[in-house]
Amino acid sequence: MDERAALALIDETLPAAGDDAAVVDSLVVTTDMLHETTDFPGGTTRYTAGWRAVGASLSDVAAMGARATAAVAVYAAPEFDPDDLAAFLRGARDVCADVGAEYVGGDLDGHEEFTVATTAIGETDAPVRRSGATPGEALCVTGTLGRSAAAVRLFPDAPDRANDLFRFSPRVDAGLAVAPHAGAMMDSSDGLARSLHQLAEASDCGFRVDGDALPVDDAVREVAADGDPTDLAVTFGEDFELVFTTDDPGAVAAATSTPVSVVGDVVERDEGVSLDGEALPDRGFTHN
Amino acid sequence: MDERAALALIDETLPAAGDDAAVVDSLVVTTDMLHETTDFPGGTTRYTAGWRAVGASLSDVAAMGARATAAVAVYAAPEFDPDDLAAFLRGARDVCADVGAEYVGGDLDGHEEFTVATTAIGETDAPVRRSGATPGEALCVTGTLGRSAAAVRLFPDAPDRANDLFRFSPRVDAGLAVAPHAGAMMDSSDGLARSLHQLAEASDCGFRVDGDALPVDDAVREVAADGDPTDLAVTFGEDFELVFTTDDPGAVAAATSTPVSVVGDVVERDEGVSLDGEALPDRGFTHN
Repeated sequence: MDERAALALIDETLPAAGDDAAVVDSLVVTTDMLHETTDFPGGTTRYTAGWRAVGASLSDVAAMGARATAAVAVYAAPEFDPDDLAAFLRGARDVCADVGAEYVGGDLDGHEEFTVATTAIGETDAPVRRSGATPGEALCVTGTLGRSAAAVRLFPDAPDRANDLFRFSPRVDAGLAVAPHAGAMMDSSDGLARSLHQLAEASDCGFRVDGDALPVDDAVREVAADGDPTDLAVTFGEDFELVFTTDDPGAVAAATSTPVSVVGDVVERDEGVSLDGEALPDRGFTHN
Repeated sequence: MDERAALALIDETLPAAGDDAAVVDSLVVTTDMLHETTDFPGGTTRYTAGWRAVGASLSDVAAMGARATAAVAVYAAPEFDPDDLAAFLRGARDVCADVGAEYVGGDLDGHEEFTVATTAIGETDAPVRRSGATPGEALCVTGTLGRSAAAVRLFPDAPDRANDLFRFSPRVDAGLAVAPHAGAMMDSSDGLARSLHQLAEASDCGFRVDGDALPVDDAVREVAADGDPTDLAVTFGEDFELVFTTDDPGAVAAATSTPVSVVGDVVERDEGVSLDGEALPDRGFTHN
């Protein structure tokens, strides 16, 4: 069974699961695990690792349109170097402070590979689901796409710049501002293409994306000489931007200082997911 | 830096950490990671693994005297066998149902070793800390000690019985009943000896334990022919019972149907931690 099939099994078994975060009363909860070999390229500092691992879970809280309350992490490593651990904690604490949440610690574990399991908690009385998109709405994206794709190409030769690109501000404030106007929302952690297919399935709709409107990050244009920048921005993922639908993009723009791009619109399911008139395949990371 | 020193570094850095669970307003949060090689002996079913992994975090919620609200887990394995995954989810859901919490899913991750990261969330307006013990109080333990020590000796030859012993009821109801009467509380996940030293340090007190009063589980007497049953019950740990102090054991006994044993009393710090008049060393598991 591949990861997608296994996730579908979880969704069937647990009705509260299946979105960016689970909802229990007014609480939202999300958990994630990251590994050195797959998630932290050589050159990633422990400060960036702490920021990014905890930030990934905070991004899931943001994607529900919830306020971020707290986060915890398990730090598992072959040995506990005090400088590494202190840097990790600083990164975890700083990303929480960035979104007004509290980093309240967690646990340590001896483990062959550096591995981090993070959990973030948020609160909302009106969670925004993946299932609320309606044909006719505008499709929007916050920030820019491709920062992580660029960072991965810059490691390990330009570690300072790569680490900068690898740290991101979880879009909690933007998520709160968007929520009252949003039909459906999720984050772009698996890439825009994968996100759109997941939204399409959950909302029973299709999407039409305008390539020229995509906010491709300057960094990806600069470093991705080996690939098509738009393709990288759409499929690489791990940018942790919000992808949402709304019938009032003007109200959204007025409600937040985070840049928001209208990149397309919601269409009927049988029109599928397309980019500039061509079918956009369901490609991208399969992790959450 | 060993795990204890590293945990001390976390406690210094993060004031909300350092107890069985972190406290944020009225929320308590705790997270933990378990691995096949260290935590799930050969013969442990995936149902038991799900029960036990999530139960360990629920036990930390119980140890704060909090109501358990929800739990999530990351299930990381080399492959996702549908039967294994379904059994794990059933175990996780059943242990949550056992304490009135909701299991709301989590995430999957590809990983060489079967690894589980669990997080549990609870609520209380009056968390019971490790730091509230006062000389003169009675020292109490719920249930029995040594079930896990016995289980580990029964794997893999008597897997049914070992799996039964390995699943435990997190003491959430007992924790809620004890809370109004408790000075200090924690769970016995690292063994009674280690718990007492941690309580002694947090509360600046000592403990005097009466060996005859210890509720050593029948199973450990039966299978631990290779060791001293009392020693195993005191140092092996992973029983997830509550260890607490109270000035009114009668009120506690009246408030809960969970068996509670008075096993000693709280003394001054300079008397240290002793069992039947002999110093009880700080031995046991160093995980949480």
